[in-house]
Amino acid sequence: MRYAVLGTGEVGRTLGGRLVELGHEVMLGSRTKDNPAALEWARGAGPRASAGTFADAAVSADVVVIAVGGRVALAALEAAGAENLDGKVLIDVSNPLAFEEGELRLSPVGSDSVGEQIQRAFPHARVVKSLNTVNCRLMVEPALVPGEHNVFVCGEDAAAKEQVTGLLGEFGWPPDRVLDLGGIRAARGVEMWLPLWLSLLQHVGHAEFNLEVRRGR
Amino acid sequence: MRYAVLGTGEVGRTLGGRLVELGHEVMLGSRTKDNPAALEWARGAGPRASAGTFADAAVSADVVVIAVGGRVALAALEAAGAENLDGKVLIDVSNPLAFEEGELRLSPVGSDSVGEQIQRAFPHARVVKSLNTVNCRLMVEPALVPGEHNVFVCGEDAAAKEQVTGLLGEFGWPPDRVLDLGGIRAARGVEMWLPLWLSLLQHVGHAEFNLEVRRGR
Repeated sequence: MRYAVLGTGEVGRTLGGRLVELGHEVMLGSRTKDNPAALEWARGAGPRASAGTFADAAVSADVVVIAVGGRVALAALEAAGAENLDGKVLIDVSNPLAFEEGELRLSPVGSDSVGEQIQRAFPHARVVKSLNTVNCRLMVEPALVPGEHNVFVCGEDAAAKEQVTGLLGEFGWPPDRVLDLGGIRAARGVEMWLPLWLSLLQHVGHAEFNLEVRRGR
Repeated sequence: MRYAVLGTGEVGRTLGGRLVELGHEVMLGSRTKDNPAALEWARGAGPRASAGTFADAAVSADVVVIAVGGRVALAALEAAGAENLDGKVLIDVSNPLAFEEGELRLSPVGSDSVGEQIQRAFPHARVVKSLNTVNCRLMVEPALVPGEHNVFVCGEDAAAKEQVTGLLGEFGWPPDRVLDLGGIRAARGVEMWLPLWLSLLQHVGHAEFNLEVRRGR
């Protein structure tokens, strides 16, 4: 498969690197053609890895991964070009966190989410929100944490969610640990998990933790 | 111990009933003296159970449990009277959920929480946010769900959190499953867990579930 990974931060490079290891072709997309982090990543990640603009990455991709900060996700996708996204699976792993008045806060929050914003702005894309609830090292190596801990998918397109669940399986998440939360509106819940995740980060002292949903009956 | 449980809904009656079973004296508080749900609960729960106004309940209590909806928590506490809350442990188990534009939404959300609102409005009370992350049957009977699943405490007063951790132990939560998230600001995170909890309620099909924090290293 050909993946566009939009975003050259730790999340984008970690996801891109693992996708290359799994045999996929990956272009890391950024605002500019000569982003140093992207070029260095591409040099180190081997022949199936390349770097380019958001549009360069999206145009030839089968699947687009949104790994920029949630507050700039729409801008990155506009730069990628709606015509390069139509009909494609968009995996949104972003969180709309930023410092405001000295605190890490989410925006949008409560009555909207980045997942929904993207699906509204690009109605012909097949948006699936996933993986934003865990640290990026854990995204691609769930065995770092013991137990049957979970990740989530939500989105309007069942086939797209199935495809993403398959990719999660390549990363090491068995299908019974991928919980389908329904339509893209459920992105609110997985994005609003972040403040509790940040409290737990302080409590645990590192980012290698995750939640496991335990059930009675 | 003498507990005031403010709120006569399922949460208040479930917590009050379990506290009576554990040997405590409990007055269920409501807006009016003759609340039918409270009077019926008191008749059924035995000689250590009684019913009265918010102020009746708070005045003679050692500990006050806030089991009304989060959006009316401040009003209930104002009715209880600041002079009846000073120096006491206030356990806030509430969630500020309500239907808005056909959807269940939180308010406050993001940059504030009910836990913080209460601590600001009643600076001499010792507020501890806890238990709001699970269904009320699970609050008082964690063994309904298998595994080492967790509850949280947060608040400004370490001794108050210790006292609440002791009460959680009486309910069946061992101390190592009670995670201390720090100051009352962490109430934002545990309140913002609710949208994901609601998605999981739909996914699981019933309310007997909880999250277990799994850690690597």
